[in-house]
Amino acid sequence: MTRVLVWNEGIHEKRNEEVRAVYPDGIHGAINQLLKVDKTIVVRTATLADVEHGLTEAALAQTDVLIWWGHLAHQQVADEAVARVQARVLQGMGLIVLHSGHLSKIFQALMGTTCNLRWREADDREVIWTVAPDHPIVAGVPQPLVLPRHEMYGEYFDIPAPDELVFVSNFTGGEVFRSGCCFRRGKGRVFYFSPGHETYPIYHRADIGRVLINAVHWAHVAVPHAVITTQSPNDPLNWFVGETT
Amino acid sequence: MTRVLVWNEGIHEKRNEEVRAVYPDGIHGAINQLLKVDKTIVVRTATLADVEHGLTEAALAQTDVLIWWGHLAHQQVADEAVARVQARVLQGMGLIVLHSGHLSKIFQALMGTTCNLRWREADDREVIWTVAPDHPIVAGVPQPLVLPRHEMYGEYFDIPAPDELVFVSNFTGGEVFRSGCCFRRGKGRVFYFSPGHETYPIYHRADIGRVLINAVHWAHVAVPHAVITTQSPNDPLNWFVGETT
Amino acid sequence: MTRVLVWNEGIHEKRNEEVRAVYPDGIHGAINQLLKVDKTIVVRTATLADVEHGLTEAALAQTDVLIWWGHLAHQQVADEAVARVQARVLQGMGLIVLHSGHLSKIFQALMGTTCNLRWREADDREVIWTVAPDHPIVAGVPQPLVLPRHEMYGEYFDIPAPDELVFVSNFTGGEVFRSGCCFRRGKGRVFYFSPGHETYPIYHRADIGRVLINAVHWAHVAVPHAVITTQSPNDPLNWFVGETT
Amino acid sequence: MTRVLVWNEGIHEKRNEEVRAVYPDGIHGAINQLLKVDKTIVVRTATLADVEHGLTEAALAQTDVLIWWGHLAHQQVADEAVARVQARVLQGMGLIVLHSGHLSKIFQALMGTTCNLRWREADDREVIWTVAPDHPIVAGVPQPLVLPRHEMYGEYFDIPAPDELVFVSNFTGGEVFRSGCCFRRGKGRVFYFSPGHETYPIYHRADIGRVLINAVHWAHVAVPHAVITTQSPNDPLNWFVGETT
Repeated sequence: MTRVLVWNEGIHEKRNEEVRAVYPDGIHGAINQLLKVDKTIVVRTATLADVEHGLTEAALAQTDVLIWWGHLAHQQVADEAVARVQARVLQGMGLIVLHSGHLSKIFQALMGTTCNLRWREADDREVIWTVAPDHPIVAGVPQPLVLPRHEMYGEYFDIPAPDELVFVSNFTGGEVFRSGCCFRRGKGRVFYFSPGHETYPIYHRADIGRVLINAVHWAHVAVPHAVITTQSPNDPLNWFVGETT
Repeated sequence: MTRVLVWNEGIHEKRNEEVRAVYPDGIHGAINQLLKVDKTIVVRTATLADVEHGLTEAALAQTDVLIWWGHLAHQQVADEAVARVQARVLQGMGLIVLHSGHLSKIFQALMGTTCNLRWREADDREVIWTVAPDHPIVAGVPQPLVLPRHEMYGEYFDIPAPDELVFVSNFTGGEVFRSGCCFRRGKGRVFYFSPGHETYPIYHRADIGRVLINAVHWAHVAVPHAVITTQSPNDPLNWFVGETT
Repeated sequence: MTRVLVWNEGIHEKRNEEVRAVYPDGIHGAINQLLKVDKTIVVRTATLADVEHGLTEAALAQTDVLIWWGHLAHQQVADEAVARVQARVLQGMGLIVLHSGHLSKIFQALMGTTCNLRWREADDREVIWTVAPDHPIVAGVPQPLVLPRHEMYGEYFDIPAPDELVFVSNFTGGEVFRSGCCFRRGKGRVFYFSPGHETYPIYHRADIGRVLINAVHWAHVAVPHAVITTQSPNDPLNWFVGETT
Repeated sequence: MTRVLVWNEGIHEKRNEEVRAVYPDGIHGAINQLLKVDKTIVVRTATLADVEHGLTEAALAQTDVLIWWGHLAHQQVADEAVARVQARVLQGMGLIVLHSGHLSKIFQALMGTTCNLRWREADDREVIWTVAPDHPIVAGVPQPLVLPRHEMYGEYFDIPAPDELVFVSNFTGGEVFRSGCCFRRGKGRVFYFSPGHETYPIYHRADIGRVLINAVHWAHVAVPHAVITTQSPNDPLNWFVGETT
């Protein structure tokens, strides 16, 4: 089983009727529905309003893959919570950052860059192309995957070059965007996936659900490596005596 | 199930008593034993002496991952067989190239470089370090994995920069070597793993078996992507009409 | 000084009046004009019709960077010439492959993949975006660089993941393309740049000239490393005696 | 001209007679001497004790490449100074982090990982191998570069996979280390180079000076790209009108 925690800021749905109409159960509720298709995935959800944002040590310890959606309240996420999530990722927890999560504290902390991009809300058509056909995240994904109306996200996207670039998007207005990006950090894995503006029913699509399910399995490091990375150990000269069989 | 074809040149074991003593069932026989531990893997074997080297279209069509060991007779492998293997890799078959296979026609064809390296047979100790702890190939592999005696393979190893560098080796004589290297080519995946000189009992070790089993699963692209890569298709301007739901 | 050899197939311009109108001095002639802006670059040209295609050992020995444009006659380029060029690249010569050169023997040999792509001649607008703003190839290049009418080249482009992805293009029809890709092979460097269909005046644009000049300087390895890669040398155990000062 | 600021913590040399004997003018003084060989480089130096650590906005604005050596006092570097340096790197300033600088705040902030490693002070011999012979940083560097006695730094080194891996080291005790690593962040470039423990005369060697000079030139982005990355701009739909010539 893969234990997924879907974290959603949860503000748009409360304040804005248009968003509530699209996501009556919240964005986290819709993502939960998409993941349910896979019976090997167990989903819990949490929001900004929960105690410690639902990101306690205990909650993270039971999480294999954390999915993150945020937009309006990035600065309201406590630094301590961000530090806990970062430490867990480096120790092997998967992290999937969605859409406007590109400016979240946790994504910026893991990338080391501004993570800025160009954007526009004008009903662009987004056409998402697979550029890594061997990758488990694209299994069963159509070439291309077309979103008839979506917010535009465009280059330059200020991230480190992804360890694996999986999707690239075309927008009607003439832009391109690296919309599916894999990063390896410490013992953990990070996937950024740009679809999911709150006013479009993106998280009700089965093809987007397929990407998210694939991404959960890719990001889940089932057997974290035994190497210690939380300190810089001082090794004796003859550490390997007796290890050579 | 993952269908593995272990291909071994099969000459050293016939000609050389020392090698026969280490591998009485051939190198392919020993690798077969290592993989048997995993009940989801089905193994067949083939050698240079088989009809079409055992690399017919039919044989390759039933292969998810091909493991390749060769040394003395790289030039005796027919160009047609090499072309068939390369085409299958680009269509999604996994390929694991072992040790002296670095100079095989198939590895050179997929890399585009000479694949030369420095070497020495002098009972160096090889210490293999994981440098990608998130990677499925290293799950359960000790840090480090120590081979008390092995042939030295040293840098510069003339390959493209690996898409994922997994293992780096230290040798007593002062050399280093990128000993575990992942490459993505077309819809397929290639793993080069340097341990396995014919006069040392490397393929009788459980830790080496663990790496090979992990590599088989990593290289097995279970659902090859639907995109067509065997030609350069001419697309009409309005190809996406009707696809946008 | 950087010595550039511009190689052009040179067939379209002879057979086709439309192309001749765009490139009266040949595509190689137009590229020559673009590079002349930089006084540190010395240009020679060669075509398929020249003796040994103008790709003799002597000619290559005097070349720091080879620029390649071909389309109709990839199969007429002699295998021996391709082998000579590949060997020189691996020894440190730069190679810039343009547009339809993606299916040239030399590019396929260096990539190890089919290099297929999707295409369409329908006056798409191509918008070229920089995705690596630190890269010397993009210095002085506008964001974006817009070609009002060009042939569409689309994904999936069957190449290894570039060592550095520099440009990504948007096309009116909805496609994207990795239009500027850097590869490191052996001691040499390869840049693929997709603009340059024969019926559009792409190689008369100063912004395209800027990219080509930058690419020439990037691809020119001024001091090839001393390491030997043309063989796999057998090293003694104590090779470093006396080297430690 | 390339304007280099050599930043040194400057504590070991004051407190420890052994270090002072090796570096009577400070580590920054020795690096200054090494760089002086190249007449196109202008060097200034700064230390922790300087006002604002010598890392004011004005100082950084006049710096093309910052070289960083620190060890004992990483936590005494003000967060504001670290933020200024990070912002400048993302805007195009080069950064070269040396040896124990792997645990500096600035390196950790740019990497997003712990940057931990294994270490030992036991007079290991370090043998540094070039694994990227096309790279400008290795021009004129011997294969291998041998340090007869040095501190051991070993894997796993908890960094993102380098964008370009340039050097890998062998240590007597059996370890390996990715000792020369290039990273691209925003419009800037970062090079980590591990040699330089304070009790060994590493920065008096001409071969190490060659690496540092090469690295300065590689890290110097002469023409920072015009793209804006300090914000996420909202683009109108028809931004490109009039740009298509």
